[in-house]
Amino acid sequence: MEYPPLAELVKDKWPSDVLQRAKELQAEIGSIGAYSHSKGVPLIRKHVAEFIEERDGYPSDPEDIFLTGGASAGVSLLLNVLITPNETGILIPIPQYPLYTATLSQFNGIPIPYHLSESDGWSTSLAEIESALAEAAKKGVKPRALVVINPGNPTGALLDLTTMENVVRFCEQHSLVLLADEVYQTNLHSPQTHPFHSFKSVVRKINSPVPLISFHSISKGVKGECGRRGGYFECTNISEEVRAILYKMVSVTLCPPLSGQIGVDCMVRPPKEGEPSYPLYKKETETIHAALAQRTKLMADRLNLLPGVSCVNSPGALYLYPKIELPDKAVKAAEALGKSPDTLYALELLDETGICVVPGSGFGQKDGEHHYRLTCLCPGVEQYVSALEGFHRKFVEKYGGL
Amino acid sequence: MEYPPLAELVKDKWPSDVLQRAKELQAEIGSIGAYSHSKGVPLIRKHVAEFIEERDGYPSDPEDIFLTGGASAGVSLLLNVLITPNETGILIPIPQYPLYTATLSQFNGIPIPYHLSESDGWSTSLAEIESALAEAAKKGVKPRALVVINPGNPTGALLDLTTMENVVRFCEQHSLVLLADEVYQTNLHSPQTHPFHSFKSVVRKINSPVPLISFHSISKGVKGECGRRGGYFECTNISEEVRAILYKMVSVTLCPPLSGQIGVDCMVRPPKEGEPSYPLYKKETETIHAALAQRTKLMADRLNLLPGVSCVNSPGALYLYPKIELPDKAVKAAEALGKSPDTLYALELLDETGICVVPGSGFGQKDGEHHYRLTCLCPGVEQYVSALEGFHRKFVEKYGGL
Repeated sequence: MEYPPLAELVKDKWPSDVLQRAKELQAEIGSIGAYSHSKGVPLIRKHVAEFIEERDGYPSDPEDIFLTGGASAGVSLLLNVLITPNETGILIPIPQYPLYTATLSQFNGIPIPYHLSESDGWSTSLAEIESALAEAAKKGVKPRALVVINPGNPTGALLDLTTMENVVRFCEQHSLVLLADEVYQTNLHSPQTHPFHSFKSVVRKINSPVPLISFHSISKGVKGECGRRGGYFECTNISEEVRAILYKMVSVTLCPPLSGQIGVDCMVRPPKEGEPSYPLYKKETETIHAALAQRTKLMADRLNLLPGVSCVNSPGALYLYPKIELPDKAVKAAEALGKSPDTLYALELLDETGICVVPGSGFGQKDGEHHYRLTCLCPGVEQYVSALEGFHRKFVEKYGGL
Repeated sequence: MEYPPLAELVKDKWPSDVLQRAKELQAEIGSIGAYSHSKGVPLIRKHVAEFIEERDGYPSDPEDIFLTGGASAGVSLLLNVLITPNETGILIPIPQYPLYTATLSQFNGIPIPYHLSESDGWSTSLAEIESALAEAAKKGVKPRALVVINPGNPTGALLDLTTMENVVRFCEQHSLVLLADEVYQTNLHSPQTHPFHSFKSVVRKINSPVPLISFHSISKGVKGECGRRGGYFECTNISEEVRAILYKMVSVTLCPPLSGQIGVDCMVRPPKEGEPSYPLYKKETETIHAALAQRTKLMADRLNLLPGVSCVNSPGALYLYPKIELPDKAVKAAEALGKSPDTLYALELLDETGICVVPGSGFGQKDGEHHYRLTCLCPGVEQYVSALEGFHRKFVEKYGGL
């Protein structure tokens, strides 16, 4: 009835730096079967703060870090705290990842949609945000926070520094909390020309007092360990009093899953050059980065050659969000079925090719426009693009041409 | 750069039934780093339904099972769904595990407290529930659901069949949803004389149409794998339409942690007699059950010998909730410090002995009464009880006696 423990079996078999990290975490955590601190394991929060300091060049305090069960749990918590019973509005980008509208609806908050500028590479436009605020004011909705997803989902867009500074100043002027969803921060296809800047670094650089919550996750990047449910958020310019309320609220569900917390530790402390596991780590991550960049570019280039399709090339995240012009007959056929035209397109694509895309109406788009979201994760992209092309031409023809 | 995978290292080293289970789960799940179905891995939900069928003797449908990140995540979801903006009240037991009041406050629900009967072994009294409902009606609060914690936290009480049937009929008459928190269902100290009955079995037995949600968790029992965040709830007499809404809501945060889901599988499918891991499993669980029962009894017996202390002996869960009479001078000293008397007692106990108990005011109690909650998990109980006794006598003396 005695079985050798795992530590004994992996000894001398796995890289020594991996075993060393496991020992260090075990010494801090004890058992992953036990509750941790409700904000997350202190040592892991310290590692997160060190990661942020190194990324941004500005200090980060472990007390400002909350580990979460994925970014969605953090977003849910913050929206819960920000929404008060009286007509609280939250500015959200359109198109947007539906987490935001869904969570707002759970907490009786009111979405204030602002359109991203497709003609400007899906960038964030202050004019659009201002006009959204004016609309909201007419309806008596009180804006409380602004959500920015950078790199964008579903657009794959990446904000430049000037736009980010303007967004921060705008939040300052309008007393808005800035919610920065930065879960795709390492999904960069051309980091030399299109680098990622965190909102934390911008806020510190221009010395802004704007309250900022920044979300990150282990579910994206090149790891994609989404089933472990891990992530964190950092509070910037958030008072100790508010942080105490957040702490009280997270303590209601006791603690985030330990396997996700350990995933966060691995994310913020990747193997370093010279360590035994570094060569394998480097090889795997570089291969995935290169494949994602190559697939994204190939898909965007080929989609742009199709009649009635225009696709903003994406410098980040995992998606393309092509705009499709659809024949009038297709629009009418969709109407007759009680579906949106892009849903009809997506369903027929699925039936014909087995390729599953998400219709733009799930993310939001301007009236009369049609899009779909395409993930760039699948190997064998050449085959998929050919199938997409063939389907598109047939679909347009079937419904009488453009 | 090639390292042997775990499966190869544990082969022939760990019990074959354990490896077989791992293989079966891996074949179903793929990677625990990936999202699962938002309601949880289908095969694990099937195993949960089989466990419930075997426990209760009534059918259970995997479609009625939702896996969750601990019971608290399930409770939070259900309260979110049940609470509508207009004065929704939820009946909760007093004393209660503070999860309920905290979550109600998050969703702007109104607690309708009903007192448990200490003189009747902390049982649930319909008269108390009726008087709580009458109070609520006066304030315009609309009751929507009744929470029962069985076995009880913090009381350690266990409901008998007659009481349970009455509670179910009461919910029927008052159109209340019944929320059954049954996370301590395997923590039974004398299962022959005090067995656990699930509300599901009672509802089926008396053929009641009452809507019931039953919660269970891997965080309690003799496993206590709380850091993995796993649990489930079962819907009984819940329409397909409402289940669809629940499914939509859980899909917002994608899926429960896979390590918790796997924990649920282990809980509902323990090793069976004849399997290689059974002897060790049996030895470990029996040892823990016996230790908990012995500690609980010893503590209750000894506490009841102390002046001014009366303690209901507990047939289940992990707690005792002794009532303590405190000297007038102690009550006044607490008042002067702006603390409740039981908080003063708990703080001085902590300072003097290092023993941490939770003051009854955290769980709720009748005006003028004082309690504290004591967990029965620590080994070396003799030493702790002696320290508690010594402290109690000194405390009473220090504040002028009873």
